[in-house]
Amino acid sequence: MTELAPETRARVAAQLRGQRIETASWAYANSGTRFKVFAQEGVPRDPYEKLADAATVHRFTGVAPTVALHIPWDLVDDYADLARHARELGVALGTVNSNVFQDNDYKLGSVTNPDPGVRRKAIGHLLECIDVMDRTGSRDLKLWFSDGTNYPGQDDVRTRQDRLAEALAETYARLGGDQRMLLEYKLFEPAFYMTDVPDWGTAYLHCMALGDRAQVVIDTGHHAPGTNIEFIVAMLLRAGKLGGFDFNSRFYADDDLMVGAADPFQLFRILHEIVLADAVSGKGIAFMLDQCHNIEPKIPAVIRSVMNVQEATAKALLVDRAALRAAQDEGDVLGANEALMDAYHTDVRPLLREVREDMGLDPDPIGAYRRSGYFEKIRAERVGGTQAGWGA
Amino acid sequence: MTELAPETRARVAAQLRGQRIETASWAYANSGTRFKVFAQEGVPRDPYEKLADAATVHRFTGVAPTVALHIPWDLVDDYADLARHARELGVALGTVNSNVFQDNDYKLGSVTNPDPGVRRKAIGHLLECIDVMDRTGSRDLKLWFSDGTNYPGQDDVRTRQDRLAEALAETYARLGGDQRMLLEYKLFEPAFYMTDVPDWGTAYLHCMALGDRAQVVIDTGHHAPGTNIEFIVAMLLRAGKLGGFDFNSRFYADDDLMVGAADPFQLFRILHEIVLADAVSGKGIAFMLDQCHNIEPKIPAVIRSVMNVQEATAKALLVDRAALRAAQDEGDVLGANEALMDAYHTDVRPLLREVREDMGLDPDPIGAYRRSGYFEKIRAERVGGTQAGWGA
Amino acid sequence: MTELAPETRARVAAQLRGQRIETASWAYANSGTRFKVFAQEGVPRDPYEKLADAATVHRFTGVAPTVALHIPWDLVDDYADLARHARELGVALGTVNSNVFQDNDYKLGSVTNPDPGVRRKAIGHLLECIDVMDRTGSRDLKLWFSDGTNYPGQDDVRTRQDRLAEALAETYARLGGDQRMLLEYKLFEPAFYMTDVPDWGTAYLHCMALGDRAQVVIDTGHHAPGTNIEFIVAMLLRAGKLGGFDFNSRFYADDDLMVGAADPFQLFRILHEIVLADAVSGKGIAFMLDQCHNIEPKIPAVIRSVMNVQEATAKALLVDRAALRAAQDEGDVLGANEALMDAYHTDVRPLLREVREDMGLDPDPIGAYRRSGYFEKIRAERVGGTQAGWGA
Amino acid sequence: MTELAPETRARVAAQLRGQRIETASWAYANSGTRFKVFAQEGVPRDPYEKLADAATVHRFTGVAPTVALHIPWDLVDDYADLARHARELGVALGTVNSNVFQDNDYKLGSVTNPDPGVRRKAIGHLLECIDVMDRTGSRDLKLWFSDGTNYPGQDDVRTRQDRLAEALAETYARLGGDQRMLLEYKLFEPAFYMTDVPDWGTAYLHCMALGDRAQVVIDTGHHAPGTNIEFIVAMLLRAGKLGGFDFNSRFYADDDLMVGAADPFQLFRILHEIVLADAVSGKGIAFMLDQCHNIEPKIPAVIRSVMNVQEATAKALLVDRAALRAAQDEGDVLGANEALMDAYHTDVRPLLREVREDMGLDPDPIGAYRRSGYFEKIRAERVGGTQAGWGA
Repeated sequence: MTELAPETRARVAAQLRGQRIETASWAYANSGTRFKVFAQEGVPRDPYEKLADAATVHRFTGVAPTVALHIPWDLVDDYADLARHARELGVALGTVNSNVFQDNDYKLGSVTNPDPGVRRKAIGHLLECIDVMDRTGSRDLKLWFSDGTNYPGQDDVRTRQDRLAEALAETYARLGGDQRMLLEYKLFEPAFYMTDVPDWGTAYLHCMALGDRAQVVIDTGHHAPGTNIEFIVAMLLRAGKLGGFDFNSRFYADDDLMVGAADPFQLFRILHEIVLADAVSGKGIAFMLDQCHNIEPKIPAVIRSVMNVQEATAKALLVDRAALRAAQDEGDVLGANEALMDAYHTDVRPLLREVREDMGLDPDPIGAYRRSGYFEKIRAERVGGTQAGWGA
Repeated sequence: MTELAPETRARVAAQLRGQRIETASWAYANSGTRFKVFAQEGVPRDPYEKLADAATVHRFTGVAPTVALHIPWDLVDDYADLARHARELGVALGTVNSNVFQDNDYKLGSVTNPDPGVRRKAIGHLLECIDVMDRTGSRDLKLWFSDGTNYPGQDDVRTRQDRLAEALAETYARLGGDQRMLLEYKLFEPAFYMTDVPDWGTAYLHCMALGDRAQVVIDTGHHAPGTNIEFIVAMLLRAGKLGGFDFNSRFYADDDLMVGAADPFQLFRILHEIVLADAVSGKGIAFMLDQCHNIEPKIPAVIRSVMNVQEATAKALLVDRAALRAAQDEGDVLGANEALMDAYHTDVRPLLREVREDMGLDPDPIGAYRRSGYFEKIRAERVGGTQAGWGA
Repeated sequence: MTELAPETRARVAAQLRGQRIETASWAYANSGTRFKVFAQEGVPRDPYEKLADAATVHRFTGVAPTVALHIPWDLVDDYADLARHARELGVALGTVNSNVFQDNDYKLGSVTNPDPGVRRKAIGHLLECIDVMDRTGSRDLKLWFSDGTNYPGQDDVRTRQDRLAEALAETYARLGGDQRMLLEYKLFEPAFYMTDVPDWGTAYLHCMALGDRAQVVIDTGHHAPGTNIEFIVAMLLRAGKLGGFDFNSRFYADDDLMVGAADPFQLFRILHEIVLADAVSGKGIAFMLDQCHNIEPKIPAVIRSVMNVQEATAKALLVDRAALRAAQDEGDVLGANEALMDAYHTDVRPLLREVREDMGLDPDPIGAYRRSGYFEKIRAERVGGTQAGWGA
Repeated sequence: MTELAPETRARVAAQLRGQRIETASWAYANSGTRFKVFAQEGVPRDPYEKLADAATVHRFTGVAPTVALHIPWDLVDDYADLARHARELGVALGTVNSNVFQDNDYKLGSVTNPDPGVRRKAIGHLLECIDVMDRTGSRDLKLWFSDGTNYPGQDDVRTRQDRLAEALAETYARLGGDQRMLLEYKLFEPAFYMTDVPDWGTAYLHCMALGDRAQVVIDTGHHAPGTNIEFIVAMLLRAGKLGGFDFNSRFYADDDLMVGAADPFQLFRILHEIVLADAVSGKGIAFMLDQCHNIEPKIPAVIRSVMNVQEATAKALLVDRAALRAAQDEGDVLGANEALMDAYHTDVRPLLREVREDMGLDPDPIGAYRRSGYFEKIRAERVGGTQAGWGA
């Protein structure tokens, strides 16, 4: 990185040291496809062990100090105790994710189910999640509804929207003053004809109706082919409605691969919009990983994912914004594209190694993890019991 | 149709008689792809001849009494005279479509161009379109912007949105009290990286900011693969923001084939949402055709398209809504789907033949057109001059 | 159907009576998505009970006399006994489907796995499936490989093809003289970056290398968005390489919905190619259902699917091929399209009711099933034990 | 690039110096979409001026010594004279591209047209292209057929394949012993329902039937969403049927953007397969650009595209193949992916600057072009006459 001017280096490094990426408790558990879940050795048996793995990721990356929970996958009797455990490990509990898709009652939907009793039950779960937040000190309630229909005619689109709006309003009203609701959209799966919250327009419309503390969360794997995700990022930033990201990557559908693995240039473009809005940190945008490490070892995969977000951020921070804007304003198509690509083509790994050393970390997180013996330890210790999974 | 109860038949027939479909002046002109425009015989040389063709479609279908204009493709000195000519032919001028994509100045955009002078010029054109509307008595200004970028970095997404909002606001302010603005979105083409109004969410957001007389228009060919269009129809109906349709069909991109040709079941599902909202007529939704008849003869293709919309509407009107709702409320997936499919599988062509006879029309519009000698007449008369086209 | 000429009616009815559709044993078992399997009442606990359900479908449709097996989901000690049981129920065992994707060894692939021991094991399973065929009298071995990779670089594309070719060759060599190998392709899932047999080109290439008794099977849900499936049908028919279909339908990915539910017009176009090749029966093409009835009751869903194939076939048989060909040869685009659409728009349900009555069946298979009390019976009887599923 | 071992650097640099990329004559001409062609200043008026632009690209890149022709866009009276002119400019004539899509006769197809007279005419054009090759010394005849249909039923799929096979066979028979036929496939456009050569499977099938000198050419923009192009590269390499590439990039359809602009990682993966087959040069694979520079200046856009291919190639050459293979063979998913990504993340621009200096070139081709005054010269000189375009 000899070419970077010292002040550029300092500015970028400062931002990178301040960046925070939240990992997900379920990323450390077994996951798979409908065809097969390949169990791995050393997988946690309970939320406490998941936190230990998350803390390990933070120990080697330095930028992953919070862990998202999924209720009921992370159901415990005493959330205050879980939070205390997290603190002892050097991390904190983060976003609370509701789950209203795995009870038998939810076969035809949760908050949009034709049966009012089921809707009532689902709303009850959402309210309980806020109870959990009160105890964990979490700021964000993340809502993803698998609700939808598989066949044309199965249920009425507008009626379901009305039910959705009602459930969201009741839940929103329950939020504490410093709590937020993040509404996630997804094109399809598990619903295969119509999904009740399929796109950012729908999520935006509902969040507008709710109020300032309702915001949209973008899962990078939840779009139709060809969707320009960074455009959505920019639109939501402009509207003040971008609550956060569920990062992962995909070639086809919701593949949930490691972020940056399928299209690193897309990840860079997304983070370029974040940088343009000066929102890498301090603007309340939650940068979360939501991935499935079906065939690769989970902890190093999460570390790699954190590093991929860091590298994309570093490149985005290196964009010469003045040169970019000048070329844009002159209508210099090739010059503007080149200003962006110049940053993308830069190898930022040396800079990130320096940043890590500044933070007192090993410059090579994956290597350090491998050398630490942590995996050998959990493989030996976590024998017996039931490995955590999705409970599908 | 012996199975239809008389009251059902009467109800459906009444709705079908009241349905109105607007055809587009440019559908009668030459069109093609970037590879080739195959000129056809008998194509109009000016807006007056286009109106004659549109009037012919109305003569044989009885439900296409208005014709959309495209400015400047339909530039004339005296719009009042054009309107008078239309009236004499038995039709009326309809929606005015602006065109801010064919002037050399618009290479990098019109209302979102980095150059303020170009933006000014584009807004000027939009305002002139409202002048035309004042003279033609048109209710709707339809705005489609080809604006966008081809390369990442080429221009700033949020800045372009700001420019767009400004242009829309100025144009909206110029509308007369009974005039509307219909904002159309399109995923891509001719912009190949980022389109400024690519999806319904963006169009909705801007229309919300503008006011009640700004509404979204859905072009059925302008979506990403897998998009559930009838869901968008339902969402916009629910929000009171559905201004109309540009009907056509597609297998791949914006193919602009005859509506109902690629996926007749999708067209039926769209019209099912319209019927559920009792919006076949009287609710201000503009049902327009926007198609390219590149290789098939144009007038019979437009007639066929009108008939396809009628057939889909007839099927949608035949849905037993009470039975459908009962099955939905009971969570009877197969029963609800069957209630919908039962209507779809019905052959409604006999009913439509009866409807046409009731309206004093030939029951077979295509056959009647062919027998009328109209094509032989225009082929002989329209010799010399310059055939109308897109001017690309 | 008063409009059908008697000879047309007789010709079409004869073909419909001769049509055969194979149902899949696993369609009667529980299935779901990676998010949740919603168990249903009355689901079979073993292959014998699955056969009973399949026999029920055949009892009410008359055209589903064979049942596909999936090894090891349908593992039994004595296949001859299973075949005898099937015969007693009025059905027969059909295609044998191998399963080399659910053993822990197959995490990185089966026949393309980098580990030669795993490849050996997988080939062993394929050979055992032929042993099963010898005992069941099945003609077809259907091979679907979930093999692939999730990340770029994970394994070598060409090397994996070499391994695949080797495994196929060894398996093909083991086939008896009247046995066939049907090779299925799939774009993605569960592999999320590269699938070893992702498209018809790959399947065709391998089948060509193997010999006449290796043929391609088309699963209608296994294509990229926008793929023209009927084109592939035509190509494989022309090349003599179409072995059969796995029918289902989809809006997005491999949704495995009831065939004809998502795009009935597409199903019609597929069967039109079959009819054009006079291959509805007697040409060795296996017409199979491969679906997941995740939220709808399974037996009536299979009956509905069989009916959907019948209706599409009936419409395809009604195409006036002489008129179609004449219009095609004249370059009459609208006329040729109309000849096809005329058959599609016909309501063939009355004809199919007549065909069923001719076959001594109730004209309304779904209603007859519901009235039969079969579901109430299995719901009461099939209590305790472990319901069959995918074992994921 | 201080980290590159000297022997690595030397090996990679040697390969990069030997790489050849063919530019297309039509890339220097005006192009656009069906909505608008934005003419640019300084655009060539004839094939001689196109060659001058191509020679300029070669002058600054050193790796683009041949120019593809498009007949009839590049129709001249004396091809020997054109070839001589090229030689004087330091370049040579390359691949000959046939064009059977712009004559009015081809509205319903060329070699697959229902009219035998049109088919005869189209074949005649193909044979004439070989005449041109004889005079220009071109090795490759590249065939792209826009043939297809817009509506279901419009023509018979299999019959059209028979016509296609016949035309290809007659053309193939006319080839000289050192001439090749490259058959290109394209999913859609300008045909919007069925394209006669839509995918690699179809092209492969026909090339297999023809013989060794018929090979498939991959246009990187001609696939369905989600298609794994590098897989196709690997399959065709394995089968000995990869004739070449038409490079460009796309976000949506056949956008024809600069190669590497939309997904640089994909381009790298494609070249990784080429490198794995040791086919960067010397294996007869034609690396061609086929792009439309609709809004950006054409010559620098072509230079940029050449550089993008070079950069992707350099990264692919840097892959540590031994380490990659070792990780693959061990089933080390993350390690194998990391081996690939390590090369991708490397900034190869310094290496390429060195390679250019070794070749006696300016290390900054774009800058050198801008400083050369070439554009100012052609802008001043090329006034009057008719600018070259697509003639659509």
